[in-house]
Amino acid sequence: MKKSILLLTLLISIISCNQKNEKILDLTTLSSEEKIDSANIKTLFNSALTDGKSYEWLRDLTQNIGGRLSGSPEAAKSVLWGEKLMKEVGLDSVWLQPVMVPHWVRGEKEIATYTINGEEKNVPICALGFSVATPKTGILAEVIEVKSIEEAKALGDQMKGKIVFFNRPFDNTLINTFRAYGGCVDQRVAGAAVCGEFGAKGVIVRSMTNAVDDIPHTGTMIYGDLPKEKHIPTAAISTRAANMLSIDLKENPSLQFYFKQSCETLADVPSFNVIGEIKGTQTPENIMVVGGHLDSWDLGEGAHDDGAGIVQSLEVAYLFKKNNIKPKNTLRVVFFMNEENGTRGAKKYAELAKLNKENHIGGLESDAGGHTPRGFSIDANTVNTKLLQSWKKLLSPYGLHDLDKGGSGADISPLKGENVTLVGYRPDSQRYFDYHHTSIDTFDKVNKRELELGSASMASIIYLMDKYLYKNTPVKL
Amino acid sequence: MKKSILLLTLLISIISCNQKNEKILDLTTLSSEEKIDSANIKTLFNSALTDGKSYEWLRDLTQNIGGRLSGSPEAAKSVLWGEKLMKEVGLDSVWLQPVMVPHWVRGEKEIATYTINGEEKNVPICALGFSVATPKTGILAEVIEVKSIEEAKALGDQMKGKIVFFNRPFDNTLINTFRAYGGCVDQRVAGAAVCGEFGAKGVIVRSMTNAVDDIPHTGTMIYGDLPKEKHIPTAAISTRAANMLSIDLKENPSLQFYFKQSCETLADVPSFNVIGEIKGTQTPENIMVVGGHLDSWDLGEGAHDDGAGIVQSLEVAYLFKKNNIKPKNTLRVVFFMNEENGTRGAKKYAELAKLNKENHIGGLESDAGGHTPRGFSIDANTVNTKLLQSWKKLLSPYGLHDLDKGGSGADISPLKGENVTLVGYRPDSQRYFDYHHTSIDTFDKVNKRELELGSASMASIIYLMDKYLYKNTPVKL
Repeated sequence: MKKSILLLTLLISIISCNQKNEKILDLTTLSSEEKIDSANIKTLFNSALTDGKSYEWLRDLTQNIGGRLSGSPEAAKSVLWGEKLMKEVGLDSVWLQPVMVPHWVRGEKEIATYTINGEEKNVPICALGFSVATPKTGILAEVIEVKSIEEAKALGDQMKGKIVFFNRPFDNTLINTFRAYGGCVDQRVAGAAVCGEFGAKGVIVRSMTNAVDDIPHTGTMIYGDLPKEKHIPTAAISTRAANMLSIDLKENPSLQFYFKQSCETLADVPSFNVIGEIKGTQTPENIMVVGGHLDSWDLGEGAHDDGAGIVQSLEVAYLFKKNNIKPKNTLRVVFFMNEENGTRGAKKYAELAKLNKENHIGGLESDAGGHTPRGFSIDANTVNTKLLQSWKKLLSPYGLHDLDKGGSGADISPLKGENVTLVGYRPDSQRYFDYHHTSIDTFDKVNKRELELGSASMASIIYLMDKYLYKNTPVKL
Repeated sequence: MKKSILLLTLLISIISCNQKNEKILDLTTLSSEEKIDSANIKTLFNSALTDGKSYEWLRDLTQNIGGRLSGSPEAAKSVLWGEKLMKEVGLDSVWLQPVMVPHWVRGEKEIATYTINGEEKNVPICALGFSVATPKTGILAEVIEVKSIEEAKALGDQMKGKIVFFNRPFDNTLINTFRAYGGCVDQRVAGAAVCGEFGAKGVIVRSMTNAVDDIPHTGTMIYGDLPKEKHIPTAAISTRAANMLSIDLKENPSLQFYFKQSCETLADVPSFNVIGEIKGTQTPENIMVVGGHLDSWDLGEGAHDDGAGIVQSLEVAYLFKKNNIKPKNTLRVVFFMNEENGTRGAKKYAELAKLNKENHIGGLESDAGGHTPRGFSIDANTVNTKLLQSWKKLLSPYGLHDLDKGGSGADISPLKGENVTLVGYRPDSQRYFDYHHTSIDTFDKVNKRELELGSASMASIIYLMDKYLYKNTPVKL
């Protein structure tokens, strides 16, 4: 046995080298109320990490239904899926809220090519949402490369009959990749409208990503009030192809670019927001929303965008029920329809909330991917912003350090008001735009623990908001 | 043009919804010296994110050399690769430090099966490093499942002739997965030695991971001073197989488990630590080490463990040179050999440092994967721990919030001393044990931005340590 003892001594030294510190709250710094909160938050995390359902729900949604663009049969299936699941979780009531949604279809797989020095190059391409089709034979034209909407406008009539190529890349020095996205996406959204006005033949746009690869990224575009005859087709091309085309244009500025797409916008179709709630025990008339969007782009499985947000939102309610935490206010889970191209679900939800004089005191949206938690952004009045930031010591042991002011999300922001506390869940953003709006936004890109930590993070802040906003919310008149 | 203006107004509202706040330091809270530091740190991050080399270096190491267990031809190749690369980066001097390393080889692919209810089940398995082979025909025996070393010891002679199956899973409620690893790895390291003592025929161990999948995880084990005749073969089985076997054992406690492996430990072979340095401008006799380990397990490509740490460590020196930041102390990059099964490189490096009376003032190790940055663990005296923690405001805009006391790493910890400040780079740990010591620890699991953010994080803390430890390090006698 002596030998074993020696061995175990060796062992302990090896193991201790490998141990990294677990963050443990110094309980002596907490008030008695905070100790209760700390224990409840720990319960929510333990529960999500050992008995979480979100990952299997996401597998089902992404692999058995898949991409679910508004108006598609898959979107319709996902509504029934969501309703059934909310009932299974045992919410007090579950209903569908009708909303008319746009119905844009991609049609046949897009094609793009150009020839330089006798070599034909295939360009990975995808039509942008709401774009019109090219003529059946496609478009063939010279290309003008620009870096901004302003540069395009300055071209004026020079772009007549040409394809305008927007090629301003993400600013990789921005740590938060959503800011890089925000600094580029005007090219995708407005490029075709601006160039259609001046008689360009088509617009191609560098994909919205930090990555340099062969994957085109779709996303919505807007013609605004441009007359129909000026609507020109627009598509995204992969970043590697954009880099290559830019080089080739320097060699041969008059090279002819060809692309073909057969997308179209059909008549609006009926769809639904899926809603379920747990009635509040103290002030059931006060509502706290947690949600994400059920629709996704058509190219992938809508796993990070926003299957993750959907299953995490429902898991918040699941974790409350499982751990017998009864919300004082009504906790309402909303699977919004049509965030990607129209936010009609969000608008309908807010419109009916107003019409029905519902009293929303807070909301939490998860629509930034299913990666490892970093924190929340807060859109609230000064008092409530400070209140939420005071929870940092309770949340930071779980990697939730970011509690800055900022927007909440496209689906809940229509609920904004002086006494409404809106919060956006903010996971790590580094990988998000590798997948965003692409064929590779698939289930395998989501990590089980990261997803579950997100559910638990969301449940924790909802727990705190429910408890403390309840106290400081003005009584409804 | 009116239309365009309307459109752009629309656009701006869309984009602002998408923008998430960039963390910006409030410069008014900084001293003039801190403003300089803040600007230099920003330069290091910008440089890594726009001109980083680490990702392509890692591609080369992992895909052109691959797994590189100590003593293997691949490990020898990686030494030459490292030496060449350090010279290309233009370090002031580059040399190889000889060290004898163990040479364990896996041999043929391992096999494991058992039959229950007439169905033969194949079990994904891999031999543990330093394990002996089974007899050529393999081992067939009954299985006893245990959850701990203590439980195994309590079995005593009951395990004679049996295969002992260690099946204590990771504690998924621990947020830092390294702690879950630390709480389980004794089974892998000591299981065979303890059971060999009591005459067990073999040991199988549940793989060290949070994931439930079909991938077995190798890793080192130790027989200690157990006499050779008591050395029994030991292997890891995948977590899904472990769960399945556990269920099947309840149904049929006398089922016969079969496994076969042909690994062996050959004679030690000569190898090297690869070392390069930039001479300090003020006190070149004071040395600051930054490093990771060059060897890896044989099953995958050693991408996260520890190719990431290798390329990040060299990128620290690259970023200093590129941005003309001259270290006051000598900055030494070390690619340690043999961390995985022996840490002979680390021991040799520390031994020679002592022998040559080198004055190491600090060290930084990256051996926890290439995921998104979270912070550093600090192993230093009280004064320097506080000093490093005071840099939090400079580091937190880059997601570096964790600056807790803790171990630094297996390769630099032999340099520990009262006035030596040792730091471990701590990226996010959620995905790390999905890949650790497996066939899927491959280049594609590493994200370019996450890797580069790690290099920049490491360069930033080295920059601060170089500047401020220089001032408070006692003069060498």
